[in-house]
Amino acid sequence: MFDVKTFLHSDALGPAVEWKGYPKFNFIGGHNDNENIPVISLKESIDKVILREGKTLAKYGLESGPQGYFPLRNFLSNQLKNSAAINCVEREILIVSGSLQALDLVNTTFLRKGDTVIIEEENYGGTISRLKKIGVNMIGIPLEKDGMDINYLEKELKKLESENKKPRYIYTIPTIQNPTGTVMSVEKRRALIEISKRFGIPIFEDDCYADLLYEKKRPPAIKSFDDEGYVIYCGSFSKSIAPALRVGYLVANWDILSRVLPYKTDAGSGSLEQMALAEFCKNEFNDHVTNLRVELKKKSDVICNALDKYFGSAANYQKPDGGIFIWVDMPENVDTSKLYDIAIKQGVAINPGHEWSVNPSGKHKMRLCYGNPTIQEIDQGVKLLAEICQTEFGVPKQIANQ
Amino acid sequence: MFDVKTFLHSDALGPAVEWKGYPKFNFIGGHNDNENIPVISLKESIDKVILREGKTLAKYGLESGPQGYFPLRNFLSNQLKNSAAINCVEREILIVSGSLQALDLVNTTFLRKGDTVIIEEENYGGTISRLKKIGVNMIGIPLEKDGMDINYLEKELKKLESENKKPRYIYTIPTIQNPTGTVMSVEKRRALIEISKRFGIPIFEDDCYADLLYEKKRPPAIKSFDDEGYVIYCGSFSKSIAPALRVGYLVANWDILSRVLPYKTDAGSGSLEQMALAEFCKNEFNDHVTNLRVELKKKSDVICNALDKYFGSAANYQKPDGGIFIWVDMPENVDTSKLYDIAIKQGVAINPGHEWSVNPSGKHKMRLCYGNPTIQEIDQGVKLLAEICQTEFGVPKQIANQ
Repeated sequence: MFDVKTFLHSDALGPAVEWKGYPKFNFIGGHNDNENIPVISLKESIDKVILREGKTLAKYGLESGPQGYFPLRNFLSNQLKNSAAINCVEREILIVSGSLQALDLVNTTFLRKGDTVIIEEENYGGTISRLKKIGVNMIGIPLEKDGMDINYLEKELKKLESENKKPRYIYTIPTIQNPTGTVMSVEKRRALIEISKRFGIPIFEDDCYADLLYEKKRPPAIKSFDDEGYVIYCGSFSKSIAPALRVGYLVANWDILSRVLPYKTDAGSGSLEQMALAEFCKNEFNDHVTNLRVELKKKSDVICNALDKYFGSAANYQKPDGGIFIWVDMPENVDTSKLYDIAIKQGVAINPGHEWSVNPSGKHKMRLCYGNPTIQEIDQGVKLLAEICQTEFGVPKQIANQ
Repeated sequence: MFDVKTFLHSDALGPAVEWKGYPKFNFIGGHNDNENIPVISLKESIDKVILREGKTLAKYGLESGPQGYFPLRNFLSNQLKNSAAINCVEREILIVSGSLQALDLVNTTFLRKGDTVIIEEENYGGTISRLKKIGVNMIGIPLEKDGMDINYLEKELKKLESENKKPRYIYTIPTIQNPTGTVMSVEKRRALIEISKRFGIPIFEDDCYADLLYEKKRPPAIKSFDDEGYVIYCGSFSKSIAPALRVGYLVANWDILSRVLPYKTDAGSGSLEQMALAEFCKNEFNDHVTNLRVELKKKSDVICNALDKYFGSAANYQKPDGGIFIWVDMPENVDTSKLYDIAIKQGVAINPGHEWSVNPSGKHKMRLCYGNPTIQEIDQGVKLLAEICQTEFGVPKQIANQ
């Protein structure tokens, strides 16, 4: 028999574990609310666009070329202007297969082993794992309630400058930061762009969650203050419409996009999904996300209530201003990686904090996603998690019997 | 202003040229026939599946996990059995975003700079350019009318063995080889798998065109003779249904797939397209490709007639047995790269042979794709190309005035 191991290099990634279905109480992954997929409207949009333009599927890139379906880029240039005050035209937009492809493309273009990047010290696990895989030196910046600690950032940049080290980019998730949920203030956004210019370092702005602020007004993107091309911006339809569609986008000046595009070697992202989204979004995007926010806000209230009810004072968190996850700080003796290992066997999946942080405090934190579980599942899942946590770590001391 | 060049490493790929539309006579790219996109049936399939399962779009990976939509894998396991005699089950199939992602995934998993691979010496330009980019040593094997020269291959493998070099894989496009159009005989398929086992080297079988044999019966895939897991097989719906859908697949034993899957970091391929294809294919795939073959055969006849008419004896070619391209051998003084440069300015795009060959004879060959242009465009485009070629290289000596 062929032995695959003899054909792998020593740096090959370990094997995947075969997928066996979702856990019963699934608090991980950026899944969305089943009931809020706009099924009928998507169907009608697809019907319209495919009857009108279906023949163009005969070509890689339709009639739009490698940057993606033109009407979708047109929608985005209008939408980003209205919602995030970004001025961009269609040629400054690259449609990608989800924002994860955006991360991979930007990283492949700009990063090599040994490079330094700046990130928020608590961060999206997929960003941290990607940067680790490349072998990049991550400088973590602490988060305040209104976003990245700008003074700390400035000190770090000065220190790096004195060591003749130039970070390749400053990566930030300014709106509904993942996992902390913080929203960067407008003042800090302005300060960040000023620092970016002064030190001559680009900003990689990951704005995937920005459509999901429940009640607060969405702040202008950092990109909106960028008049000198320092910001590479990325967004996604995964959180606002449906993650399984795999459509995201990069926005940057053409001189940047033209260097990223050669690394996109997949002959374009799925066109049917781009066509469906363009047709749907031009009339229905805003109404859809308005409704979605209401439903997600309800689920956010449910998980906060469940945490209060079952964990009591053992679980500290900031009530989410938007999005689909909550970042929970547990007592120091709770090792959330260990909690993960035990809970998953009982059907509860959580994100252990150490994967979502470059500082040691992640060890007793956890991220819980509440977009996909039903209201009943959220309540029952948090209850079961509290019971498991009590058995293993002695906290919470008491669990309300409800 | 931000200067992107100061943030790129020295090995960064050069900038992309901005896309400005298709040339008038476009004989490049694996585009399909506009009129043969099954628009109505696709629409009906999408309607059915989205009304039934649209809510599952709320999850990355639907209810199927990271290997792709289960019903599509189920269709493939049946279809590959019936059409190519391959025995595989759903867990041995990975749905990818087009076969180009399949190439990238297999290469990223198994190849590093300095490795050696075996390929057919005239080959798909995208394969050659990818292998060059990685810095792989390509050993080209000449093609005979019935596929790879097996004796030559055996000698090369013995030579490599004596030098203690182990190729990472033998890459082959056995059915409607790209660009030569050859179809490997069943005897050679058997011989190849025997050699693969004897030398202990896996085969990477790229079967993207195999659905498009016009009249000949599709031979069993090399994979069908593989009882020890030596073959990694890839296929695509780009040629059989529509390239803009970006859906392809890898078939291999789980111990191989499990090592490839960790490199697929895009959180799954577009689900809507997988769902549409699964629904469409289970009832209509075979009828659809039967019709498509008839239409492509017509276009193949048209391009052969046009070559005869306008190039006369200056253009040598094998009449295609299937597919969407023809490989044309021109007199030695015709430098097809130069021809490309001149012709593109007059609106005729061709694939110059040197990009499709690792041997020097490619210099006076060219690949012409005829799937997308209309019958009139094929005739007029070949005529214009002959005129350009005559002006530049003095061949053909005369052009029929039709």
